[in-house]
Amino acid sequence: MTSSHSPASAAGSPSVTPYDDMTPVARTAYRARAAAAEIAPLPRSAKDDALLAIADALEVRTSEIVEANAEDVTRAREAGTSESIIDRLTLTPERVRAIAADVRDVAALPDPVGEVVRGSTLPNGIDVRQVRVPLGVVGIIYEARPNVTVDAAALCLKSGNAVLLRGSSSAYSSNTALVRVLRDAVGGAGLPADAVQLVPGESRDSVRELMRARGLVDVLIPRGGASLIRTVVEESTVPVIETGTGNCHVYVDAQADLDMAVDILINSKAQRPSVCNAAETLLVHQDIADTFLPRALDALAEAGVTVHADERVQAYADGSKATVVAATAEDWETEYLSYDIAAAVVDSLDAAVGHIRLWTSGHTEAIVTTSQAAARRFTQLVDSTTVAVNASTRFTDGGQFGFGAEIGISTQKLHARGPMGLPELTSTKYIVTGDGHTR
Amino acid sequence: MTSSHSPASAAGSPSVTPYDDMTPVARTAYRARAAAAEIAPLPRSAKDDALLAIADALEVRTSEIVEANAEDVTRAREAGTSESIIDRLTLTPERVRAIAADVRDVAALPDPVGEVVRGSTLPNGIDVRQVRVPLGVVGIIYEARPNVTVDAAALCLKSGNAVLLRGSSSAYSSNTALVRVLRDAVGGAGLPADAVQLVPGESRDSVRELMRARGLVDVLIPRGGASLIRTVVEESTVPVIETGTGNCHVYVDAQADLDMAVDILINSKAQRPSVCNAAETLLVHQDIADTFLPRALDALAEAGVTVHADERVQAYADGSKATVVAATAEDWETEYLSYDIAAAVVDSLDAAVGHIRLWTSGHTEAIVTTSQAAARRFTQLVDSTTVAVNASTRFTDGGQFGFGAEIGISTQKLHARGPMGLPELTSTKYIVTGDGHTR
Repeated sequence: MTSSHSPASAAGSPSVTPYDDMTPVARTAYRARAAAAEIAPLPRSAKDDALLAIADALEVRTSEIVEANAEDVTRAREAGTSESIIDRLTLTPERVRAIAADVRDVAALPDPVGEVVRGSTLPNGIDVRQVRVPLGVVGIIYEARPNVTVDAAALCLKSGNAVLLRGSSSAYSSNTALVRVLRDAVGGAGLPADAVQLVPGESRDSVRELMRARGLVDVLIPRGGASLIRTVVEESTVPVIETGTGNCHVYVDAQADLDMAVDILINSKAQRPSVCNAAETLLVHQDIADTFLPRALDALAEAGVTVHADERVQAYADGSKATVVAATAEDWETEYLSYDIAAAVVDSLDAAVGHIRLWTSGHTEAIVTTSQAAARRFTQLVDSTTVAVNASTRFTDGGQFGFGAEIGISTQKLHARGPMGLPELTSTKYIVTGDGHTR
Repeated sequence: MTSSHSPASAAGSPSVTPYDDMTPVARTAYRARAAAAEIAPLPRSAKDDALLAIADALEVRTSEIVEANAEDVTRAREAGTSESIIDRLTLTPERVRAIAADVRDVAALPDPVGEVVRGSTLPNGIDVRQVRVPLGVVGIIYEARPNVTVDAAALCLKSGNAVLLRGSSSAYSSNTALVRVLRDAVGGAGLPADAVQLVPGESRDSVRELMRARGLVDVLIPRGGASLIRTVVEESTVPVIETGTGNCHVYVDAQADLDMAVDILINSKAQRPSVCNAAETLLVHQDIADTFLPRALDALAEAGVTVHADERVQAYADGSKATVVAATAEDWETEYLSYDIAAAVVDSLDAAVGHIRLWTSGHTEAIVTTSQAAARRFTQLVDSTTVAVNASTRFTDGGQFGFGAEIGISTQKLHARGPMGLPELTSTKYIVTGDGHTR
C-alpha cells in the first residue's frame, strides 16, 4: 500500500488528474508543488544562499539577459508601442545590476517562516504555538516589466514558496532568459529549480488554466491593469489576492495648514502620476475653499495637472491659470494615472467621508488638517487600506513602510491589506504538544 | 454634487445596481453594508450592551423560540428525518439558556477591533500603525443547527461586522424566530437592526445570489457538508473561507508509548466521531506494528469501530476481536464521521508523511512518539492546520485553544487557518501620520 501511495510515485492528490493527462500548465503547477514541499522546511541560510547565487548569476549573465530583452524591445517598437511602455520593458546592464542588488536586499531581510505568531500553555498543560509557514505555490500574473520576474521569484523563495510566473507575452524573451538564469542559480545552490517556473503558453488560455489549478496553486496574485485583475478575481477558483487599483483621495479639512495642503496635494498627484498610490481626487471643505482653492488650482496648473471640477470648484477657475473641465460622475471613480485630478467642494468632513466611501477603490486616502478631532474621525470612518494624516498618499508602499520589499498592494480585506511584504506570503499552522492528552 | 452623491441618497457604489433594481438578497446585503459602516467604529461597550441585550431577550422570549422550533421539528419528523439530525435541530428551554450563556461569554471576550497589530516610526519621522478593523459584511451559509444562528451573529457583532445568515430551509421557522429576537434586541440597544439579517428565500437561488454579491459582501463562510462547501468555493465571486472537512490522521511512530498511543487513537476516533477533528485514518510504523496493532485492534473493537485495513493491517485481524474489512483507495480520502477508521502500516515516518500529504484534507494530524527527532520532523513536514504531538486530534477547536468561541475551522491557507476566533473576523488598515510629509 504505502509504496503505491508514496509521494514519489503518486499522481498528486486523488482528486487531481494523473500527471500524464495534465495540461502543460497543470504539470508546471504540479512540479511547483513538489518543489514547494522541498523548500518549505529549509532553514534561512539555504534560501539566502540561493538568493545570493541568483544575484551573482544575474550580474555574470547580464549580456545574455540584455540581448534577449532587445528582442522584446524590437518587437514592441515594430508594434508601435508607446515610449513609456518601452521604457518599462527595457533592461540595461545598470538595470540588471539594480535588480541583482534588490535580490541581495531580500536575502538580508528576516525570514518570516518559523516565526511564532502566538503561543500559550492551555489550562490542561498542552502547549499551543501558531507558527508561520509558507503558502506553498504562489502564482503571479503580471504585465510588461521584466524586473517583476526577479522580484517576485526572490520574495517567494525567501518566504519558502515556489513561484509560477506568468508575465506578458510582450516580455516573453526577457522573462525566458531571466527564468533560465534564476533556475540555474537555484539548482546550483542545491534547491529544486522547479521552485521558479515560467508558465508555458503565451495565450490567455494559460492564464485560464492557472486560474483553474485549485489544489495545485495556493494563491494567485494578479499585478497589472484593472481588466486583468477583474478577470482573475471573477474567474479564478484558486484563491486570489486583489492588488493595485488606486482611486486615492486628498481631503483638505476646514482647518488646515494651506502650505502643507498644497505640498501634499501636489506630491500626491504629480510626483509620479502613473502609480497606484497617486491621488486622483481632491475634496475641499467649503469653509476653506475660498482661501485654498485659488492656490491649489495655480499649483496644479504649474504641475501640468488638468482639473476635472464639480460646479463649486469651477467657480474658482476664472481667476486661475488652471485647465479646468467639468467633471461627470465617471470622474469620481476614475483612476487617471495621468496629470489629471477630479475635484469637488464638500459641505463637511462627513460629506467627504461619504464621497470617499462611495467612490474609492479602497487604496489610500489622505486628510490634511490641524484638528485632532477631524483626524480621528476621518481615520475611524474611512475604510481603505491606508489612511494618511498630514502625509502624502505616495507613502503607501512596502519599501516606504520599511518592509524591505513588496509583492504588491492588496486592496482586499482578506489575508492581506495594503503593502504586502514577506509575512503576507505566508500562512500559519498550529503545533499542539501534549503528554498523551485526550479529551 | 456632494448631496447627490452622499451615502444617504446614493444607490451603492457606482458599479452596483440601484437599490430598486436589486434582487431581494442584494437589498439585504446593501442594508447590511450600511449597518456595517455604522457599527464598525463603535466602542466595545456599545457592542457588549447589544450582546447582553440579546442574551436577555433569548431568555425572556424562550417560549416563542421553542414554539417556532417545534414547527421545524414536526416538519422534519413528517419528512422522515433521522433522529440524530432532529436532535441537532431541536431547541429546548435549557438549550436556549445555554445559547444565551454563550452570548454572554462572547460579550466577555476582548474586542479585536482597534488592536495595533504592528507599528513603528519610519526614518523620516512618519508614524505607521496597522490596526484591526472589522471585515464589514460577513455571510454565513450553514446547515441544520439553529444555535449557529445566534453564535455567528454574536461573534460578528462583537467583531464589528454585520452578518447575513443563510441557514437551511429545515430550520427556517427557528431561524426566523431567533433573528426576530436578535434584531429586536440589537435595535433596542441602539444599534442598527440590519446588522443581523436572515437572507430571504429558501431555494438554492438565494445562495447563488449571495455568492455573486461581490462588493456588497466581504466574505462568505460556508459551514456544513463537503458538497455545500465545494459549491461555494467554486462558484462564489465573493471571497470565501473554506471550513471544516477533516480527514485527520493518527500516526504511531516506531518509538511510542503504547498506552498513550491507544488512548490517543481511541479518543481521536471515538470520543465524538461526527465532528471534523475526529480521526479517520491510523498509520502505524512497521517496527511497532507487532506490539501495537493487536492492542489497537482490540481497543477499536471495544469502542465499536470498524477498521478498513490495508493488507499489512489485515494480517493482524485474525487474532483480534475487531471488525476488519479490506481498504480501497477511496478509504484513504474518506471523512467517515462515523465509527469507522482506515488503517495502514507504513515503512517509515517519511512514508507516513507522504501518505498524509497525499490524502489529507489538511485539518489535523497527530503523531504519537517518544522521539524528539521524530516529533520535530513530523511537525516540520506535515502541512495541515494543526499538527498534534502526543495529543488527541480532538483538541483542534477554538474553545479548546482558548479563543473563547469559534466561527469555524478554516482548512485553507489564506487569511485564517485552523480554528477561527474573533481576530480572524477582522481585517486591518494602516494609519500613517506625518507633519506634512511628502516624497
